[in-house]
Amino acid sequence: MATIARGSRTIAARHAPREAGCGIITNDMELTGQSLIGSRRGGRDGAPFHALNPQTGETLAPKYHSASQAELNDAAELAAESFTSYSRLGGKERAAFLRRIADGFDAHRGELAERANLETGLPVSPRLLGEAARTSGQFRMFADLVDEGSWVQARIDPALPDRKPQPRVDLRSMLRPIGPVAVFGASNFPLAFSVGGGDSASALAAGCPVIVKAHPAHPGTSEMAAKIVAEAVAASGLHPGIFSVLFDAGIEAGAALVRHPRIRAVGFTGSLKGGRALMDLVAARPDPIPCFTEMSSGNPVFVLPGAFRQGAATLAANLFGSVTLGCGQMCTKPGIVLLPDAPDAAALTGELRGLVEQSKAFTMLTPGIAREYGRAAKARAGQVTLVAEAPHHDNPQEREPHVHAHARLFSADVEQLLADPSLFHEIFGPDTLLVSCASTHDFLRAAHALEGHLTATVLGTEDDLEANRELIQVLEQKAGRLIFNGVPTGVEVAHAMVHGGPYPATSDARFTSVGSQAIFRWARPVCYQNFPQALLPEELQDANPLGIARLWDGKPEMARQRLS
Amino acid sequence: MATIARGSRTIAARHAPREAGCGIITNDMELTGQSLIGSRRGGRDGAPFHALNPQTGETLAPKYHSASQAELNDAAELAAESFTSYSRLGGKERAAFLRRIADGFDAHRGELAERANLETGLPVSPRLLGEAARTSGQFRMFADLVDEGSWVQARIDPALPDRKPQPRVDLRSMLRPIGPVAVFGASNFPLAFSVGGGDSASALAAGCPVIVKAHPAHPGTSEMAAKIVAEAVAASGLHPGIFSVLFDAGIEAGAALVRHPRIRAVGFTGSLKGGRALMDLVAARPDPIPCFTEMSSGNPVFVLPGAFRQGAATLAANLFGSVTLGCGQMCTKPGIVLLPDAPDAAALTGELRGLVEQSKAFTMLTPGIAREYGRAAKARAGQVTLVAEAPHHDNPQEREPHVHAHARLFSADVEQLLADPSLFHEIFGPDTLLVSCASTHDFLRAAHALEGHLTATVLGTEDDLEANRELIQVLEQKAGRLIFNGVPTGVEVAHAMVHGGPYPATSDARFTSVGSQAIFRWARPVCYQNFPQALLPEELQDANPLGIARLWDGKPEMARQRLS
Repeated sequence: MATIARGSRTIAARHAPREAGCGIITNDMELTGQSLIGSRRGGRDGAPFHALNPQTGETLAPKYHSASQAELNDAAELAAESFTSYSRLGGKERAAFLRRIADGFDAHRGELAERANLETGLPVSPRLLGEAARTSGQFRMFADLVDEGSWVQARIDPALPDRKPQPRVDLRSMLRPIGPVAVFGASNFPLAFSVGGGDSASALAAGCPVIVKAHPAHPGTSEMAAKIVAEAVAASGLHPGIFSVLFDAGIEAGAALVRHPRIRAVGFTGSLKGGRALMDLVAARPDPIPCFTEMSSGNPVFVLPGAFRQGAATLAANLFGSVTLGCGQMCTKPGIVLLPDAPDAAALTGELRGLVEQSKAFTMLTPGIAREYGRAAKARAGQVTLVAEAPHHDNPQEREPHVHAHARLFSADVEQLLADPSLFHEIFGPDTLLVSCASTHDFLRAAHALEGHLTATVLGTEDDLEANRELIQVLEQKAGRLIFNGVPTGVEVAHAMVHGGPYPATSDARFTSVGSQAIFRWARPVCYQNFPQALLPEELQDANPLGIARLWDGKPEMARQRLS
Repeated sequence: MATIARGSRTIAARHAPREAGCGIITNDMELTGQSLIGSRRGGRDGAPFHALNPQTGETLAPKYHSASQAELNDAAELAAESFTSYSRLGGKERAAFLRRIADGFDAHRGELAERANLETGLPVSPRLLGEAARTSGQFRMFADLVDEGSWVQARIDPALPDRKPQPRVDLRSMLRPIGPVAVFGASNFPLAFSVGGGDSASALAAGCPVIVKAHPAHPGTSEMAAKIVAEAVAASGLHPGIFSVLFDAGIEAGAALVRHPRIRAVGFTGSLKGGRALMDLVAARPDPIPCFTEMSSGNPVFVLPGAFRQGAATLAANLFGSVTLGCGQMCTKPGIVLLPDAPDAAALTGELRGLVEQSKAFTMLTPGIAREYGRAAKARAGQVTLVAEAPHHDNPQEREPHVHAHARLFSADVEQLLADPSLFHEIFGPDTLLVSCASTHDFLRAAHALEGHLTATVLGTEDDLEANRELIQVLEQKAGRLIFNGVPTGVEVAHAMVHGGPYPATSDARFTSVGSQAIFRWARPVCYQNFPQALLPEELQDANPLGIARLWDGKPEMARQRLS
């Protein structure tokens, strides 16, 4: 793509399908409105829907067509069929394929960001262009991981024929892909957690075919991503069944997908209600399968006394920035801030009040999300004190007021919080709840009362941290990531990242959906007993032809070491 | 314990409680019949039950008392209370504790084996003495693992303050214990998969408190093991809440335990019915938790043409030995043997028929298991051909015929197998089903039709294996362990062992319940962002004071390397 059209009207028109009977021309990034079933396109008979531009209230072309059950079955059968060859593909070949996808995202990042902007209201720059870079970056990270190869956790316990009382047989194990994975696109990350997002990237990296249920709020962005991946599949000469994308106006296709016998694992990022519904469907399968749902997190922030040294204004600006990043539509938005009962805290509250009262209205991702935010914020105002609310009349050009949300600041004391655990629950939008704690003991009581969260943050000096070791120990049991002097938003894609946590943050705290460890969701150990060398996977052969790090008789064997 | 009494009467009398009102003297291995709630004993008001000697039909003293809901709650609260300190205990201290337990099992192995023999009918030597050695060996293996320390998968992504467009924060992650674990003792391994079995050993090694629901068929063995562990807890000066054992005549305590909010994970080995019931209870919790059930496996054996080179008699002896090991009451008993339609296979069938017809009756673990075996074998005889059955009149001394089981050999052709998937299902007892396959294609069809199994075995020459690569590839998707020229029984406790497999073999194919990787069931990754060195766990400090293997910026960092 040589040029990137800047006007949203232009883009919308360009991406509309040519109305040409059954012969839809699908050059380049032109959108067709049809699901992708391996290498072919889905039909146009299913329930139709359109994306909505939340900034204008207008519907966006083209019309999208819900996938049929037959198409879903075809996608699942193709995925299962492709698994045998794709699961045997070497790490270097898989890496080349993933890099091809990354190149595709890089080549089309402008168009992706423009279309995602139309469908989500998120700004093109830096947000969506950054998210596009993150998307290709994720593919490259997983490409590097499978190219190097040590991620499979190879373990070799050589035979001990002379051991008494019984000899030991030769045992070798490594991680192998689990099978076709169902991925659900998230509303709040149209690129990095959607069709070509972290779940798809990590599953494809592990050697698993992927079927994505696209999020209906950004189908155009989803179709563009689908084309980028499908083109890389074709260019790499891989079985087309390894990647399909299903559109659906409702929830039927997703429900059918996670119940399909060919599907071996599920990845989802979204609401607690949606995630729990999927967990329950999966648990009721004749054969339950791993189900990873990333759902709901209050991301508590504990402000210890030393934190005020940086000044109430700076502290308030950092917190407000984190609360309202992405219009508060972040999994890691700090929704609860625990403060000492001190003058400094009053100053912080005052600063935050000022920021909220000067805040403009935010355009939310969808009318449904804006409505739910309004409902939840109203309910919370009935439970605790509403300290401040952004003005509602700041934008006379609002064409779709129901997609707008206003920042809110609530306050409560710790007794209220402990008496009503619903106050810990996430509200998806630009609000936060300040909780006043009379003592260190109150901080601890609040920490003990927490359910599972993605993150827990502590602000203060190192001396504060030292003096509150017990608090840290309790928080470690409640969250997947502990942050010292930072904000929880901004989830680095790294090897040590943990974007997970005990329920209801996720369905399974033993895994992360961000960072290279996300690949472990889609793999299972397989042990080969007494196998001839030539028939072992290369990772497990004595000569270590791939030069990976392994565990030899329980001891770390350095990468390349056994080659010398 | 200086001497080991050999006569079963003697042991039963020795272990009977002294009837002395409320002041029960509990020296040494004397049995009390009461649950263990941390450092105190449970009450004697719950529903009573006795162990049964399956060899004689006699009940065994003492009387056992079901735990009350209040005792269960106490155990759970104590476990949660103990978790904070136990989860912070260093690997070396935890290793010393585990080795103390191992010493206890070694010191009492004779008595354990004698009592287990009375309660299970399994022979003292080599089986139960071997199982006692395996039990202490498991504790020592996990002690070595946590002593060395690299198992926590430490990952360090140092800060990149100069990175563009945004700096990277310092991120460090490692595995941390998940919390109190509920363990269910298995009927068929009264030592190695029971109170002090692999689930308890791996959970304690990970840093998790354990509450065991003892199997009601071997309460005396369970109480002995409970005492050994409890004494090690006390001698190590640890919080007594880290280990409790609950007795129950029925299933109520187990059901309440897995629903208890303090319990954070479940480990179970047993029947498909029991395991699935636990899975469903856990999935219906307000906060679902990891649930590991090891349940049902047919352990198919594929006999390729070259296998007959060793002679039909040898092949038959090996298979028959594996089918009847432990009276066929093994998770890995080969329940389906797929044979080519050839004269060699007819010879093998003839040899097996001879072995079955010469076989004596087996004493099963419990009347219930014997009854269920009889029922299932009768049902199978209505589906396929009963080739041979061990004679029923071989033991005039049988005092409890309902605890006896007779080896059976069934046969079917592959079309019958494919038409009736229930033929793949495990029968728990000394039977196997021979399935005749007309071609390599039939082997593949049968492999594709398999559900999940713990193991899949291929017998033949290396050329056979080479010629059947596709079969191996399919089997890899169906089982946790692939065996070449061996039998599936005999599960080595090793680093590369995988005792797991897709449902219904287990609830979660991504984990194993045997071998050092079993520890990963009880741990979750936690990420520390921007933490001061002094407040990081030692495993994550720059200086690497424990000298463990880590991943530094995504690259393997050899153990001790960073110290130099």
